[in-house]
Amino acid sequence: MKEVLIVGSVAYDGLKTPYGSAVRALGGAATYSSLAASLFAPVRMVGVVGDDFNESDLQMLRKHKVNTDLVTREKGKTFYWKGYYENDMSQAHTVEIDLGVFETFKPNITGSACNTPFVFLAAIHPDLQMMVLNQMNKPKYVVLDTRDLWINITKPALLKVLKKTDLAVVNDQEIRLLTGEMHLLKGARALQKLGPKTVIVKKGEHGAMMFGSGWTFLSPAVPLDFVVDPTGAGDTFAGAFIGYLAKQSKITPDVLKQAVIAGNLVASFTVQGFGTKSIAALTKEKLKKRSVEYYKFASIPQVKL
Amino acid sequence: MKEVLIVGSVAYDGLKTPYGSAVRALGGAATYSSLAASLFAPVRMVGVVGDDFNESDLQMLRKHKVNTDLVTREKGKTFYWKGYYENDMSQAHTVEIDLGVFETFKPNITGSACNTPFVFLAAIHPDLQMMVLNQMNKPKYVVLDTRDLWINITKPALLKVLKKTDLAVVNDQEIRLLTGEMHLLKGARALQKLGPKTVIVKKGEHGAMMFGSGWTFLSPAVPLDFVVDPTGAGDTFAGAFIGYLAKQSKITPDVLKQAVIAGNLVASFTVQGFGTKSIAALTKEKLKKRSVEYYKFASIPQVKL
Repeated sequence: MKEVLIVGSVAYDGLKTPYGSAVRALGGAATYSSLAASLFAPVRMVGVVGDDFNESDLQMLRKHKVNTDLVTREKGKTFYWKGYYENDMSQAHTVEIDLGVFETFKPNITGSACNTPFVFLAAIHPDLQMMVLNQMNKPKYVVLDTRDLWINITKPALLKVLKKTDLAVVNDQEIRLLTGEMHLLKGARALQKLGPKTVIVKKGEHGAMMFGSGWTFLSPAVPLDFVVDPTGAGDTFAGAFIGYLAKQSKITPDVLKQAVIAGNLVASFTVQGFGTKSIAALTKEKLKKRSVEYYKFASIPQVKL
Repeated sequence: MKEVLIVGSVAYDGLKTPYGSAVRALGGAATYSSLAASLFAPVRMVGVVGDDFNESDLQMLRKHKVNTDLVTREKGKTFYWKGYYENDMSQAHTVEIDLGVFETFKPNITGSACNTPFVFLAAIHPDLQMMVLNQMNKPKYVVLDTRDLWINITKPALLKVLKKTDLAVVNDQEIRLLTGEMHLLKGARALQKLGPKTVIVKKGEHGAMMFGSGWTFLSPAVPLDFVVDPTGAGDTFAGAFIGYLAKQSKITPDVLKQAVIAGNLVASFTVQGFGTKSIAALTKEKLKKRSVEYYKFASIPQVKL
């Protein structure tokens, strides 16, 4: 079974949305994406937590086939983010950030972990992303996420990492910021020239668009009756995406498309609970049930012209 | 062959977008939608023009199987709209409106036109929409479009027409305004209770979502390399939609879905030219070619869970 290595933040989040709140919910990009990827493949998680981190949360991750040997525990506080969402929850407003032990995080990949074939670099500082890649032994497939902050303040470093990635996951603002192109299709083509052969643009409630070599694909988002907390949807998407890839024998455009659908399906559960609660409770049975509904919704019949 | 009756504005538009401009382009909801519907079925257009209206424009419509016998010519000016779009062209800004002869427009349906089975009521005053329906002899399928203006100032009249329609085409703002529901799915269900068994929510570049009795469907918009003028996209969509329906022997959920795809495909041409220029120049061959690309883009492969 091919393994996925995931590096990113592990955090506790204080969340408030129009539908409720959580004081200290388990979160962080690595947590969401590892739980999502673990639905399909064994996961090696790389991160750092403080001495306030609950042992029970590490146990929960391990129960999900997530190897936490490279999640180090340091003296200090676990990364804490406090934020809220209003109205349609399209934007996260930050109230407080305490980087804690994450501030001095240096990913250290050792032993057999260096041979992990699938790598997901969550949206951390590009220098740390590069540090991970430099420690890896020719990974088969590297997926990179980033955010506006890194594009704005560390673009040269980011461009170097991009050269070494197979696929970049961005949103429409990030792609504009990165490439200077206002038009999504042109932006995607420009981003492909910077390194990643394949680009995914996350469009939130409108789904995800993927740009390959000479082809484009759209998977609509799952229509949902209720959404309570959008935190971690993008990380979940990316985690499920790479986990799905790792499980397949070959990476073809069709498999990449399937992986995007898997990403959308799994992410649709994350937003229906606070923090990692509902992704941690997700089963293959629930996922299969939702996929049946999804195909009814998104399968397009042949038009007679 | 089943005919479609379309009632709405016929206009000349002064247009300006980041990609060019047109001083006096043929436009109006009835024009766009009639040209679109005529790709699939014979069309009976109902409207009014002034004595400044070019005979050549009427001739062009007639060449497209659009019967213009019920387009009356009155003393005065043709409806004129002047507007512009900026940046991503998501919003039309009005500079000037001269209703001209449209101000006193009273649709008068006579003769065999009263028996037309398919009716599209473009976004005109609900009293005029009702006036049309009252003159019709039990139409088989009625599609209604509206706009925020009519929802705001003539809601009671609009609610009466809605009761007599089979399908309503709205955008997300209109559905919120009409039903008071912030959540799209809930808004669609609420709108269905007001009359139309089927609801289409146009989402611009994100496609169109259709809500039937117990089912939901999404057809993504065609991804476009260039868009020069979004005017008339929604009218084109609705026209192609009802034209496609009229051509089929039976209306089933699958046929409704196909019609949405046809609407998206045809509308993708309208936005690539100024005014009605590119929809008037559209051929079945061009449409078929684009549909091949579309199915590559929007067909979702089976995911293995």
